[in-house]
Amino acid sequence: MKEKLYVIKIGGNIIDDEEKLNTFLKSFASLETPLQGPGVKKILVHGGGKLATKLAERLGVEQQVVEGRRITDAETLKIVTMVYAGYINKNIVALLQANHCNAIGLCGADGDAILAHKRQHALIDYGFVGDVDAINTVLLKSLLEQNIAIVFAPITHDQQGQLLNTNADTIAQEVAKAMSREYDVSLIYSFEKSGVLLDAEDDTTVIPEITPVYYQQLKAQQKIFAGMIPKLDNAFAALDSGVKKVIICKAENLEQLTIGSSGTTIIAPAS
Amino acid sequence: MKEKLYVIKIGGNIIDDEEKLNTFLKSFASLETPLQGPGVKKILVHGGGKLATKLAERLGVEQQVVEGRRITDAETLKIVTMVYAGYINKNIVALLQANHCNAIGLCGADGDAILAHKRQHALIDYGFVGDVDAINTVLLKSLLEQNIAIVFAPITHDQQGQLLNTNADTIAQEVAKAMSREYDVSLIYSFEKSGVLLDAEDDTTVIPEITPVYYQQLKAQQKIFAGMIPKLDNAFAALDSGVKKVIICKAENLEQLTIGSSGTTIIAPAS
Repeated sequence: MKEKLYVIKIGGNIIDDEEKLNTFLKSFASLETPLQGPGVKKILVHGGGKLATKLAERLGVEQQVVEGRRITDAETLKIVTMVYAGYINKNIVALLQANHCNAIGLCGADGDAILAHKRQHALIDYGFVGDVDAINTVLLKSLLEQNIAIVFAPITHDQQGQLLNTNADTIAQEVAKAMSREYDVSLIYSFEKSGVLLDAEDDTTVIPEITPVYYQQLKAQQKIFAGMIPKLDNAFAALDSGVKKVIICKAENLEQLTIGSSGTTIIAPAS
Repeated sequence: MKEKLYVIKIGGNIIDDEEKLNTFLKSFASLETPLQGPGVKKILVHGGGKLATKLAERLGVEQQVVEGRRITDAETLKIVTMVYAGYINKNIVALLQANHCNAIGLCGADGDAILAHKRQHALIDYGFVGDVDAINTVLLKSLLEQNIAIVFAPITHDQQGQLLNTNADTIAQEVAKAMSREYDVSLIYSFEKSGVLLDAEDDTTVIPEITPVYYQQLKAQQKIFAGMIPKLDNAFAALDSGVKKVIICKAENLEQLTIGSSGTTIIAPAS
């Protein structure tokens, strides 16, 4: 039996709220499983929140948007590298250490952890945005085996000396997929709501489990909020690539979630 | 016989000069020894240069100086964390990867690599400045054994969640001392001049070797530039703690230096 590994993505709504972040990091630090106890393996992937935008405003660096898409120009890349890989990443690591969780903060260039290439698009030049090519599972495994939690900032590199701004959801998914060869991986997306809801306005209507068949039914009945569909499509794609479980839930509910009593669990077709 | 390890400190004069930095990183990437070849173990410690001061100016954060000492207030700590542990550290790592040198960038909080405490001083409150207590040699060794070069930003932590701004020369020295238990360590300080000079105005008057006895003679004859004395005192202290060799030289001369034909070598008393 493979050992359990949690890959947990937290978004801007947690990063931007000091109290929520502290509560989340406390739960993350004390995560345990009946089998592995407090030595359970874990990887955290964080997004950026509003701090980079705020810094860009203070520095008078205009955020370019082309056809509704945000562009990462050279100045913006400097800012996200400073904010994501510097300020946010190192503060999260220091707070985990204070909670007795040994953690190491990495960007994709560190130890060649995440190799990416600059996004090519026929119509839009996204600038210094990276799409993921490979995950260095040997490095990640060697750190996890030392009981070190890994904290990823959403910055990758191209092995040619170029850092690249990369979507944190994608990093979480690619890391989860790659690590599935070695571990029994649960991929957890933290979310502002309590899970996937039947009624978007009512936080008590969480759907506890979604199977592929049920997903098709929900879509046919138009019961899934349109914005949720890409997230769920990605979840099923991750399951197809070997990830054991995908859970969508509130970051504040991390503890209940690891015992399966919180959020929405996306389940692979019986194989 | 212990394996060789280089601990190399580069200062602001290299960080601030893109061409010098590129040349240095190329040499660092290709460092080798007759015995270990290109697999030689290496740790780079970088300072900050003028980038943090420039960013503070752009953000209108005033640099506080009390009795001639720079103070790290909360805003300045944010800035140095972003610039040192984010921008500079990750760009150095990406450039080393481009030069086929697998490297990982760490601050002291990462993997609890460097534990420090907030400086206590009877007269001056230095703010968030750290003095080093301990180096996690187990982590560093595990990375070096995977042939990963380590790149340290001069930021440490106190295990209570507080990041601390820490002198890069001190980090290099403490890392060199701690790693001497496991490796045959050469500690190399990069410098704007070619080494310790007999005539501060003449770069051809490098003293190739300084022993403790010769150092006393040079001091008695007032042939050592006053600013050099704390550096040399530190070098001898490092040798007393087990470091094999301390070399002071130009970063651009790194290649000649590793074969012993460049800079000033500080040598321990025969034991």
